[in-house]
Parts: sequence; C-alpha cells; structure tokens
Amino acid sequence: MIRVLLVHDACLVRSVLAEWLRGEQPLDVDDTPWRGAAARVRSFGPDVCAADLDCADGQGVPPLGDLCPPGTGGRPPALVVLAQANRPGLLKRAAEAGALGFVDKAGSPDRLVRAIRSVARRERFVDDSLGFGFLKAAQMPLTRRELSVLSLAAAGASIAEIAGSLHLSYGTVRNYMASITRKTGARNRVDAIRISRGEGWV
Amino acid sequence: MIRVLLVHDACLVRSVLAEWLRGEQPLDVDDTPWRGAAARVRSFGPDVCAADLDCADGQGVPPLGDLCPPGTGGRPPALVVLAQANRPGLLKRAAEAGALGFVDKAGSPDRLVRAIRSVARRERFVDDSLGFGFLKAAQMPLTRRELSVLSLAAAGASIAEIAGSLHLSYGTVRNYMASITRKTGARNRVDAIRISRGEGWV
Repeated sequence: MIRVLLVHDACLVRSVLAEWLRGEQPLDVDDTPWRGAAARVRSFGPDVCAADLDCADGQGVPPLGDLCPPGTGGRPPALVVLAQANRPGLLKRAAEAGALGFVDKAGSPDRLVRAIRSVARRERFVDDSLGFGFLKAAQMPLTRRELSVLSLAAAGASIAEIAGSLHLSYGTVRNYMASITRKTGARNRVDAIRISRGEGWV
Repeated sequence: MIRVLLVHDACLVRSVLAEWLRGEQPLDVDDTPWRGAAARVRSFGPDVCAADLDCADGQGVPPLGDLCPPGTGGRPPALVVLAQANRPGLLKRAAEAGALGFVDKAGSPDRLVRAIRSVARRERFVDDSLGFGFLKAAQMPLTRRELSVLSLAAAGASIAEIAGSLHLSYGTVRNYMASITRKTGARNRVDAIRISRGEGWV
C-alpha cells in the first residue's frame, strides 16, 4: 500500500481527485492545500507527495521545500508534481527540490497513477510533453541576482526599495532591470514582470 | 437528463471531474478546455455550462461570452462558475455574463452538483462563502476607463503605447495610472498591476 499525500489548493477539485485515486489500488490517499502541507507531511508520513505546482492565487511559487523536510529522520517522501510545459520556472524549481515525477496537467489522469507508482519505487517518471518546458528551463537567461531583483519588482517594490533590500545602488538596480528586460525580450519593466510571472520564474 | 458541458483548462483534472459528475445521475457530461469551448457549446448543445474561472495561465480573464453565444436560436445554456472569493474581478465578470450559479472552489464537490441542478431549472445558486468576494466586487473603485488603461499596462504596454491605443495624451494616461495606483492602495504602477491581476480585474 502506497501512502500518497495529494497537494492542491482548490478543495473541490482536490476531493474529487483524491477520491478517484483511492479507487486505484493500492493507494492510501490523504489530501491538503499548500498551506498546511508541511504539518500534514509530518503527521501522515506519506511515501509520495503528489503536488499541483499552481497555487490558489494562480501566480507565485509554491513552498516545495515543505514537502521534503530535511532532517526528519527516515526517508523523505518522493515527490511527483503536476505541471505545465509553459511554466518552465516552476519545472526548474521542482527539479531543484528533488522531484522524481513530472506529470503534464494537459495529459490523462492515468499518467498520475503511473507516476505515483514509479516514484514510490524511487524511479524517475517524466511526461514527454513537458520536454519543451525543460528545454526552456535550461535556457533560462537570467542570473540568480537578476532573479532576486525581478522577484522584488514583481512583488511591487520600487527601484529604490529594491536597492535598499539588496544593498545595491539605485543605478545598479536600474542596470539589472534593463538587462532583465532585454534578456526576456520584453518591451519594458512591467512587460518583463508579466512574462516572467507567466512562466513561473518569480 | 441534464446535459452539462464542463469547462476547465487542465485536462487531467477535468477528466476526473467529468467522470465523477457522470456518476451523479442524471447528468450527461461533456468536457472542454476554454479554447474550443464556443464550438463545443454549438455542437453539444448543453443545458448547463459549468466553468472554472481560472485559466490555464493562472492569470487573465476567461472568454465567458463564448459560453452564452447570443442569437443562436433556442435558449442559451445556463452558466455555473467555479470561483474563488479572493478574485472579485472574475466574480463580477461572471455576473455580468449572466451566470446563475456561483460555486466556491474551496468548498465540497457536492455543491457543484447541487448548483448544476439548480441552474438547469433556471434557479440561482450562490455559495455563501463567496459573499465577501461579491462585496469587494461591488466596492470596485476603478472606472471603466481606468480599467482599460490598467488592462493595457498589465499586458506590458508603456504609457506612450497606452496613450496611442486609447487616443489620449501622455499626461492623461499618467494621471490615470496615478489615480489607479492610489485607488488600489498600491505602492506604484507595478504594484497596482500585481494587485489587480491577483484579484482578477485585468
């Protein structure tokens, strides 16, 4: 019996998906929204976490680290994510968080069951249709520092506020923003934020 | 037998939800992503469209008008939407599109079935937990013109481009942006866009 924790923010969809998974032997399924997932990992002790990368607000980055807490003793759960090829930033973060399974939300639900079974055996499972997303993730042109600047800008901070937060000069932050705008192929700063948010980078 | 067209962008979730609804007699369920929904309404001729207001990209506004095409002869389908209280802009658009049913995605799936049955009888169905969202929708402070300016800005247009599109002067668009920033309680233009997108206004 594989113990699966399903992580998805919309209760209505999550309950139906959990019920459907329970019909697929041998799965013992619990479910939770992203908020509260860390506590549920500790109390339920799943073999596998199956998590939707899209958060309730449709933007922002889910707290993937909550699903694989370090140093709890014992093996952390294997991670399967439900993902979209057009959000490479989230694919990259999931890979960095150690996800073993990548299921395309545009695919069939049977793929999710197969992925859960694979990662429970600690075997990798990747939907081919996500390939282009991984390619885009690999080609991500922004540096880590540029991403920090962009994240603050996307959260609504002004150039001066970003400079203050990151201990940089106003001119340096302006230069970073110009470089970000150029590299993302955007028309201006607002457009760069729109593009990067849509792709799941910030 | 009620003919239901389920509209949701993620195929994986949509298939499971459609299968679950088919288990609830007397529902005859077909399903589609937002893209292609207009054609499916014509070919399937549903009594009820049940549509998730959140699009695949997690932002932007779904084409609600596609579900209730005018002048097709016969009665257009009744509309139920799956919604979130924290996206008042989408609630308002659904109300304007003539939706009869409003189901909270944070609630139980049984509510969706009840809503479908209600609106099939052309009776209104509204989840109480969405009340605060409707209140926020009613309190929306931006004018129609300000929303047009904001939509273009959110799509990445510069002040000059917005002025060109709307046949306004540069200074007028700047004044609109300042007024939008003040009314939304934002720190600056980028922050105003972030807030408005999150709430589903643009």
